[in-house]
Amino acid sequence: MKTRDKIIQASIALFNEHGERNVTTNHIAADLGISPGNLYYHFRNKEDIILSIYEEYARTLLLESMPEVSPDVKPLDAIILYMDMVFQAMMKFRFFYSNLPVLLAKNPLLHDKYVEVQSFIADRVSQLLLSLKQADMMEFDDEDLPEIVSILRLVNTFWLSFYQTQNNEEEINDSVFYQGVLKILVIIHPYISDSAKEEFLAARTMYRKRLEASLAAV
Amino acid sequence: MKTRDKIIQASIALFNEHGERNVTTNHIAADLGISPGNLYYHFRNKEDIILSIYEEYARTLLLESMPEVSPDVKPLDAIILYMDMVFQAMMKFRFFYSNLPVLLAKNPLLHDKYVEVQSFIADRVSQLLLSLKQADMMEFDDEDLPEIVSILRLVNTFWLSFYQTQNNEEEINDSVFYQGVLKILVIIHPYISDSAKEEFLAARTMYRKRLEASLAAV
Repeated sequence: MKTRDKIIQASIALFNEHGERNVTTNHIAADLGISPGNLYYHFRNKEDIILSIYEEYARTLLLESMPEVSPDVKPLDAIILYMDMVFQAMMKFRFFYSNLPVLLAKNPLLHDKYVEVQSFIADRVSQLLLSLKQADMMEFDDEDLPEIVSILRLVNTFWLSFYQTQNNEEEINDSVFYQGVLKILVIIHPYISDSAKEEFLAARTMYRKRLEASLAAV
Repeated sequence: MKTRDKIIQASIALFNEHGERNVTTNHIAADLGISPGNLYYHFRNKEDIILSIYEEYARTLLLESMPEVSPDVKPLDAIILYMDMVFQAMMKFRFFYSNLPVLLAKNPLLHDKYVEVQSFIADRVSQLLLSLKQADMMEFDDEDLPEIVSILRLVNTFWLSFYQTQNNEEEINDSVFYQGVLKILVIIHPYISDSAKEEFLAARTMYRKRLEASLAAV
């Protein structure tokens, strides 16, 4: 692995473990056994590392896993798998989502990139929900669509922060992730039409079982 | 006003304007024209000020405005007014909600108090929704109630953070507050029964008009 990639991987691990604000570039260099000067050859500062993590990893993961709207893909599967994937990205880069407003406020370039990606995601989720409506699997007023999408994104984005504020223990494990997916299913549930109910409830049962298994494993 | 109260009021204003992390106890003392020593006579440190703000102001506002579940109160009014009030508290102490996970992680005593208040609020919101169900104004499965309440609290708590991450301008005005209330109404909407639809839509129209008026005033 190239030094630049090593720095990025070590930073993700240290940020996730200790919280971004408690990790300095010196900690990162020490963790890798390289000099601070070597680190500064690759990145100007910590904000620069965070921007690269977002640009090269989180952004790519979010956008490339975005399911295409096509007749071959079962639309309910598509939306559930996408939400599942968003939560997985969130767990992988949890330092980012644990402290999002502060990180964006400190780094205007990151904020711009973030807003751009979010706007793309909102469009794509809207298309997915519309395709579910066209396939008679969901029912909603078109005028409510932007708000429904916005609530799904809000819950996705801040589920981890909410979990951390509600619980005194810091441990983040798979059960946290499944609880987040189940929240999304609760929001979608009232809009699922009768013809898709069975498929929806099967998906919910699957995630409930995964949650139980992950709680039992702790 | 006593010095202690002056310190609290100045701190709320400075934290809201500049963000809590950019304000030191020296800034607060300078703003009031008092010595840092005088400030330290009343509060041990900045965390102590934030804890007092939560304990004496935010907590009181949240708990005392909690509507009683009683036959005299129209239940739909009660829940909408309460959500309205929660958003108002959020605007008033927006420094707290802009940066909640970090503030709680830095201050375990504050975290304990916060979890305690949140658990009380969750119980009360559950009672309100159950009274709406009993009055045939809402329909939901009882097993879904904890999840619905949890989503309402998540959206309440992180609406301001979400707004700030989605928008490049920092300005927080009344329109932000009305958009938050409307988000809550979107979540509740699918559960409103036919007999309460008219009353619900009237409330939504009122908040939409207030949003339009606040946007026109900017």
